[in-house]
Amino acid sequence: MWPPHQLPDLHEDLRRAGLALDPAALSRLTGHPLNAVIDLGGCTASFVSPRGLVLTNHHCCWSSLQFNSTEERNLLQDGFLARDLGEELSGAPGSRVQVTVDVREVTDEVLRGVEEIRDGAARYARIEEREKRLIAACEADPGHRCRVRSFHGGLQYHLVKQLEIRDVRLVYAPPRSIGIFGGDVDNWTWPRHSGDFAFLRAYVGPDGRAADPSPANVPFRPASYLRVAARGVEQGDYVMAAGYPGRTNRYRLSSEVADTFDWYYPTMKALYDEAIDLIESMSETYPEIELRYATTVSGLRNGSKNFQGMIDGYARSGMLERKRARERELQRWIESDPARRQRHLSALADLERLVARQAATREREAVLGRLERVALLDTARRLYRLAREREKPDASRSPGYQERDLLPLRERLQRLDKRFHPELDKAYFRLCLARYAALPPEQRRPALDAHLAPDDPAALGPRLDRLYAETHLGESEHRLELLDAPRAALEASEDPFLRLAVALYEDDLALEREKEALAGEFQLVRPRYMEALIAHLGERGHAVYPDANGSLRLSYGAVRGYSPRDGVSYEPFTRLEGIREKTTGVEPFRAPPEQLRLIEARDHGRWRLETLGSVPVDFLSTVDTTGGSSGSPTLDARGELVGLLFDGTYDGINADWDYDESLTRAIHVDMRYVLWVMEKVDRAWRVLEELGVRSSPAPEGG
Amino acid sequence: MWPPHQLPDLHEDLRRAGLALDPAALSRLTGHPLNAVIDLGGCTASFVSPRGLVLTNHHCCWSSLQFNSTEERNLLQDGFLARDLGEELSGAPGSRVQVTVDVREVTDEVLRGVEEIRDGAARYARIEEREKRLIAACEADPGHRCRVRSFHGGLQYHLVKQLEIRDVRLVYAPPRSIGIFGGDVDNWTWPRHSGDFAFLRAYVGPDGRAADPSPANVPFRPASYLRVAARGVEQGDYVMAAGYPGRTNRYRLSSEVADTFDWYYPTMKALYDEAIDLIESMSETYPEIELRYATTVSGLRNGSKNFQGMIDGYARSGMLERKRARERELQRWIESDPARRQRHLSALADLERLVARQAATREREAVLGRLERVALLDTARRLYRLAREREKPDASRSPGYQERDLLPLRERLQRLDKRFHPELDKAYFRLCLARYAALPPEQRRPALDAHLAPDDPAALGPRLDRLYAETHLGESEHRLELLDAPRAALEASEDPFLRLAVALYEDDLALEREKEALAGEFQLVRPRYMEALIAHLGERGHAVYPDANGSLRLSYGAVRGYSPRDGVSYEPFTRLEGIREKTTGVEPFRAPPEQLRLIEARDHGRWRLETLGSVPVDFLSTVDTTGGSSGSPTLDARGELVGLLFDGTYDGINADWDYDESLTRAIHVDMRYVLWVMEKVDRAWRVLEELGVRSSPAPEGG
Repeated sequence: MWPPHQLPDLHEDLRRAGLALDPAALSRLTGHPLNAVIDLGGCTASFVSPRGLVLTNHHCCWSSLQFNSTEERNLLQDGFLARDLGEELSGAPGSRVQVTVDVREVTDEVLRGVEEIRDGAARYARIEEREKRLIAACEADPGHRCRVRSFHGGLQYHLVKQLEIRDVRLVYAPPRSIGIFGGDVDNWTWPRHSGDFAFLRAYVGPDGRAADPSPANVPFRPASYLRVAARGVEQGDYVMAAGYPGRTNRYRLSSEVADTFDWYYPTMKALYDEAIDLIESMSETYPEIELRYATTVSGLRNGSKNFQGMIDGYARSGMLERKRARERELQRWIESDPARRQRHLSALADLERLVARQAATREREAVLGRLERVALLDTARRLYRLAREREKPDASRSPGYQERDLLPLRERLQRLDKRFHPELDKAYFRLCLARYAALPPEQRRPALDAHLAPDDPAALGPRLDRLYAETHLGESEHRLELLDAPRAALEASEDPFLRLAVALYEDDLALEREKEALAGEFQLVRPRYMEALIAHLGERGHAVYPDANGSLRLSYGAVRGYSPRDGVSYEPFTRLEGIREKTTGVEPFRAPPEQLRLIEARDHGRWRLETLGSVPVDFLSTVDTTGGSSGSPTLDARGELVGLLFDGTYDGINADWDYDESLTRAIHVDMRYVLWVMEKVDRAWRVLEELGVRSSPAPEGG
Repeated sequence: MWPPHQLPDLHEDLRRAGLALDPAALSRLTGHPLNAVIDLGGCTASFVSPRGLVLTNHHCCWSSLQFNSTEERNLLQDGFLARDLGEELSGAPGSRVQVTVDVREVTDEVLRGVEEIRDGAARYARIEEREKRLIAACEADPGHRCRVRSFHGGLQYHLVKQLEIRDVRLVYAPPRSIGIFGGDVDNWTWPRHSGDFAFLRAYVGPDGRAADPSPANVPFRPASYLRVAARGVEQGDYVMAAGYPGRTNRYRLSSEVADTFDWYYPTMKALYDEAIDLIESMSETYPEIELRYATTVSGLRNGSKNFQGMIDGYARSGMLERKRARERELQRWIESDPARRQRHLSALADLERLVARQAATREREAVLGRLERVALLDTARRLYRLAREREKPDASRSPGYQERDLLPLRERLQRLDKRFHPELDKAYFRLCLARYAALPPEQRRPALDAHLAPDDPAALGPRLDRLYAETHLGESEHRLELLDAPRAALEASEDPFLRLAVALYEDDLALEREKEALAGEFQLVRPRYMEALIAHLGERGHAVYPDANGSLRLSYGAVRGYSPRDGVSYEPFTRLEGIREKTTGVEPFRAPPEQLRLIEARDHGRWRLETLGSVPVDFLSTVDTTGGSSGSPTLDARGELVGLLFDGTYDGINADWDYDESLTRAIHVDMRYVLWVMEKVDRAWRVLEELGVRSSPAPEGG
């Protein structure tokens, strides 16, 4: 996952791997092909036509498919195909297409003099203030969104400027039975047969600038777009994926690794599983819960399977021992030279101390994190916090409550309508409080204890009933009105959730300060540790890429299978016939009948890979990936589109902590399958044509 | 699974497949290598030294390992290694090594004039009588055992003469954690890592003839024995397995296929599973049950998994449609020619009618079959039946009760001691009667209804309690004494099981006659059908091998993996490292620590396969196999020993009905693994030396 600015160091490696482009092109963020790679916020996508057509994963469009669905017309289930521009549907509130237009290193501007500040909280505040100032200056250019991304835990800072397109519409998505074929059962596994793709379109105002959603808007004209490769890849071919991977932890201490795998993942898996159980059991009583919480459940399931995979993989991997060995090596390297001792010796021990401090409240953090998922509690807290922050000048407000954050906040409160059910929210609140009540006394929060009686189930039940019976925060209009209410109005409100938010406020803030102070300590110590590690590895000739942090990265590799265990090989491609093989007629293995008919008839059209004897459906590559990479365009040696990255494998699930070339694989949907589905199954000929793919003669008309 | 006498037709094919021997050698039953291949009764084995050393599967020796185990010394668990001849342990009663010394076609002698007999029962009796006469003449040669085997459902008959060695001793078996590594979990699966081998030794009297077990006996000197190949096989190499496969059903009617897969397998699986549950739950109360029923449970589990595999595979295979298409083709072929119509037309319809007749009592047959597993009921019935049969001259007695059968019967009653528990037997009896009580009225047996009150649970419980409280058949000496008791003594006995057997006798016999009459009909019709089928296939150039029937067969193929499903390849070899990978420390994945240490140290010795980078553990081949083939020596192109066949794969489990080259695979333990275990883990140097394998220097002494 190389940041483009590091690619010049890798020209040799890229050429050896098979890249047929000038490697320099890949380090130019504002040139083709990288400027066609866009950030959806949590997913990656790419422009694939001069008229703002966007290709990403099906699973990156669920919110919008869900938002546009009704009980009668389930787009998630049935798919969607706009016959012309006029039929394209607005995405869910908050849908964004973000095009990176500039990245500038701002390390000095952020860190100048910060080392001198001894107090963690003060250091944190200073860095935050500088970041906000940089962002404000950058966002003076209207229609843009800027972020400061820290690299290597704060060793470097980059200011990233993105054009933020706010009018994003649904163009075409195959039915769930193609887009999520295999569903949760196949999630994280190979062999895979998902058609995980969908098309959106970015719209801007008639003046070409980003604009609020409006019928007057016109398709955006991107600076460049990706072209579909005339022929796809074969086993062993060079591929690369460009995208916005969210987060990896490859340079963590062994103590952090142990804490995460021995405690955090098992704990979180249990919390996720009980949430899934709750939603499923309540869906029986309230059938509308199923659709409203579909995205939530899918995320929880994905998380739970991921945690379990992490735990399973960890047991087999010997990762901890490897990390420990590397730490001992680093320590020896530092100690063996007086200058290094002087410069680096304290870094390891200091970081170790901070990690221990952080772990002391891990149980509390896990539980409070889940409480943030209680929709009405979270809404009330945000509303009151906003009213308090509004009393300050914009530049002094906390991130998340500045003027620039109001629209996302509004959209969040709006979205809630389709993703919320009061009975479920209440039951979940109760579940979280039961977990809270089990915390060690020293980790509990006085305000929560005082206002929610979490230890007294007899009192808690009626209290929660009253909260939900009397609140009006469940009503969308009311919620949105309160966005503009002044502090006094909220403090005077009779709404029990708002009263609760007010009651918790001071304590919430104290806790936030406490955490910021710790973060401020990390901001000093983690970079020192990374500096030592980079120097150590550099001396051995290893370039060190920074952990993923949501910024644009490029990863390259090859189409390649792997051996998940002795005696078994996973082939790099799956075939159409595998869909028929898996079909049981029961979700998630219920392919559309027309698709099965075409497979049976071996109607491969132009999309057949001869060496495979069929149309390739999905493929594996050694490309490095993590959450956020989903939807990354997968390019061949010429920079042409051959697939979309959409998942990793269960066996390589620990890659976030430890990349293992023999096991870590990305899973891509093959463009040949995408085009086959478009042409043969869904007859999305207009979209095909826009991709520059000549339509086949269509004897059946249409 | 070719009978050796058909091999001359296949010389071309064998050469093309890679055989480096003169193919004629493989059709000589009494020449090397086939005369080294021996029948253990349910398993196959081979002579591997001039001193009667026998190599077979570990799982073919469980009875003997179990028989020699005590609560203190569990040979199944810990393995066994005799340090010298004197330490070799007698096998379980009934252990046999049978060496085929002659096979002679006797079709004419069996069938002459039989077609004229119109009555099924009479026809059955005539054939049985002729078979008994042939056997008696053949067994006039002492120490030999003869059988008449029917081929193609009675189209041909062969008289098989075997030298029967009755003193068989345990020489060496690895611990269960090697011999059954993976246990029931891995049974029928790939990848596999079982060290499924063990050594026995055949002993004969000092005069070289078969003799009862005795300390005076001496190791048998076989006419020939197999030599371990100096180097093992690689992927794609020619291999062949010679053995005694029990039964296949490749030429059955589609109606028989449908009945078997839709009714018989699901029904039997349910019956097996409830028996397993019963044994497991009762083991908690009576811990001694676990060891006594280990072989039983293992057989039931194997059967249950097999049935489930059959059912699963059937759903995917399209086998029924294929069989139906082939039947239609045969029908068309017959009808398209007057001579063929004349000769074959009635065969299909007649067979169809018989199959329907047989199916009409399938529920009863299944339940009565399970009742035969009630040990004391079965014992009592056999004892009384024997007394009745004894009243006739030997030649007129039913097979199973002639003089030649007395020793096996005695051994059976003897073995019971270690494989029986009265409480379990009683509970199982009750279970079977509950199943019996659910039969349709027309399928019930009057005598059972009259004497066991199966419909009245309140009466049944006390009745069974009394049966088991008052019987003495549970006592070994008493049981064996009764073998010689005359009919009158048994009829006068107060033993409630004997009284039950007497009460059921006439009805049992009537049922037996009824079934023989049906069998007599089949004896006429099935050969006619096979004759038509063979003519039809012969015209298209296909040689037809007969279904397996327990006679010596040779199957050849190649070392080859397969693809169990789209995107997945099974490699043909597994490696030592796979054992470590699977090791969880919990049975059945608990490899011996010393073995794990050797694997960790990559101590491969001479047994490494370079292309694999490790010692091969098990391998796959396209060799055709079924139950009874277990332990078959696997030979390379030169006829040298490279492995032991021990299982088939789940994906090819339907092969008994329909061989599918793309999915059907045999699983073999690789001799290189056998030798590695012997040398490195178990240090069985004396046995290695006897195999002609030079011992390595043994720095650790021993």
